[in-house]
Amino acid sequence: MEGKFITFEGGEGCGKSTQLALLQKYLENKGQDVVATKEPGGTELGAELRHMLVTGDKDKMDATAEALLYYADRRLHMTQKVWPSLKEGKWVLSDRFADSTVAYQYYGYNKKVEKSLLDNLYKIAVGDFKPDLTIIFDLEAEIGLARSFAKASGMVEKETRHESREIEFHHLLRHGFLEIAKQEPERCIVLNANKTIEDLHQDVLKVITERFGIL
Amino acid sequence: MEGKFITFEGGEGCGKSTQLALLQKYLENKGQDVVATKEPGGTELGAELRHMLVTGDKDKMDATAEALLYYADRRLHMTQKVWPSLKEGKWVLSDRFADSTVAYQYYGYNKKVEKSLLDNLYKIAVGDFKPDLTIIFDLEAEIGLARSFAKASGMVEKETRHESREIEFHHLLRHGFLEIAKQEPERCIVLNANKTIEDLHQDVLKVITERFGIL
Repeated sequence: MEGKFITFEGGEGCGKSTQLALLQKYLENKGQDVVATKEPGGTELGAELRHMLVTGDKDKMDATAEALLYYADRRLHMTQKVWPSLKEGKWVLSDRFADSTVAYQYYGYNKKVEKSLLDNLYKIAVGDFKPDLTIIFDLEAEIGLARSFAKASGMVEKETRHESREIEFHHLLRHGFLEIAKQEPERCIVLNANKTIEDLHQDVLKVITERFGIL
Repeated sequence: MEGKFITFEGGEGCGKSTQLALLQKYLENKGQDVVATKEPGGTELGAELRHMLVTGDKDKMDATAEALLYYADRRLHMTQKVWPSLKEGKWVLSDRFADSTVAYQYYGYNKKVEKSLLDNLYKIAVGDFKPDLTIIFDLEAEIGLARSFAKASGMVEKETRHESREIEFHHLLRHGFLEIAKQEPERCIVLNANKTIEDLHQDVLKVITERFGIL
């Protein structure tokens, strides 16, 4: 049996990484084989791309170069990790996927790149394949950024290239994720992320059970 | 006045880098402002991509991921170096450009990627812009590879990811460059590179004079 591909999306500091780890633990306790991964940087080569993409000055490259790099990373991720793992029947949980590119590069950048350009790149790198489920963690930009900066203060290498953008960017970003969810209600579910970690985890489990049955 | 964009293309060991340096010197002696650059890796960020692309195992990524990375590098190169330099009236000489991607990723890989995919990426990264002139240095694969390995033996970090492919790849590559020249005779000129450095330099100067007049 093929595994499931579940993507975790949302703005900075929305808690998706924590929720991913909790779901992984839950699924493993139920006897599932789980691969926890992320974008950018879910592969060995991709780790070098992640470094280029999430550190340094926010204006170090234009939106089109950035989109090409994210899609190069995504192609590596699909061919070297996601597709092989799914074939082995594993559940693959990814911290960010293509919706982040649309939210950041299209909505967040105030449409500096055409949506069709990103759709085009998706087709090139991923084809007709889609996640089985996408959970969007929705949170006010101000709350998420405060959380995110608190976390980054403890990092040796600060992954704050996107956090350093003005607050308007993060409002557009949040709006972008909600728009994506509206356009694909079959694939996407939006959860209110302004909750305790445990309450939010219960919401995630509810979604998983509804979509995939009792495990 | 806008400058000129001239690209130098050909297989491994064809002598294009040497010829580029000689033309640069010639043009500078004539009082032109010249930027000598290369792909991949013509920019600071691109240098990291070059490292990923030209070192290591030949099978470390699939042809599509590779094409995406080359185009990310190309977009950085265009926006951060080529277009700004041309606007300042400089001549830009580039050691490889988009024809290399078509020759290596499409012809060399025996059409593992669609030509339309590469055309698509060109449109995304470069738009309708084209080089003013492309010089293709044509040489038997066996001779070029022998030269190239001799050069690599002196390198600290061996850029031999492509050289390490089987000879058939290099035959396809040569054929690919000749096909490209046939399809765009206005832009491309093929020079027989099996000559002394000085004789080949004279051939290059003849092309430059014919295309752009006496400098």
